[in-house]
Amino acid sequence: MEIRKVNIKDKADLITELHSYKVIAQMNDYYFKLVKARRDFVWHQHPKTDEVFIAVEGSFKLATRDKVFDIKEGEMIVIPGGVEHKPIYEEECCVMLIEPK
Amino acid sequence: MEIRKVNIKDKADLITELHSYKVIAQMNDYYFKLVKARRDFVWHQHPKTDEVFIAVEGSFKLATRDKVFDIKEGEMIVIPGGVEHKPIYEEECCVMLIEPK
Repeated sequence: MEIRKVNIKDKADLITELHSYKVIAQMNDYYFKLVKARRDFVWHQHPKTDEVFIAVEGSFKLATRDKVFDIKEGEMIVIPGGVEHKPIYEEECCVMLIEPK
Repeated sequence: MEIRKVNIKDKADLITELHSYKVIAQMNDYYFKLVKARRDFVWHQHPKTDEVFIAVEGSFKLATRDKVFDIKEGEMIVIPGGVEHKPIYEEECCVMLIEPK
């Protein structure tokens, strides 16, 4: 397997389509994915795995049933497995997600 | 478990000691760690796991036996399990590492 470095913001700049997930790296059985989003997602949960969100460009909100987190560029949050959450992208935002493939 | 967001650069600003690893987040059985470094590490490998490096502040070099990668702020690289590598921090750099705990 060829080793290559990834410039995260350069990869973000290549994305022109909303809500289309791009795998930019893999670590063991986890994918690092970039997505540009601008919409409210539905409430959902991942019963068996945590999920990491890192705001790469722009800001978004991540609601749990208890609290709404305002995630700004350069911030990350881990949603534990089994916790209901709802990402809310009021403006276009590019997020890096890390989760099992 | 309390859910909290993490500002990665703010966490980096709190680190005053070189070569001291700080766990800033956990996803399943993986740790996200920050370290400020300024030295050459020894050649080593992790037989059973890939390792992710993300340059948070500053730049560093990551040598494999085939190539030396220049990892600049905002860039990441995945070193596959079993691949010998040697991080080289000629200047102080803050790196986020992702690997199993």
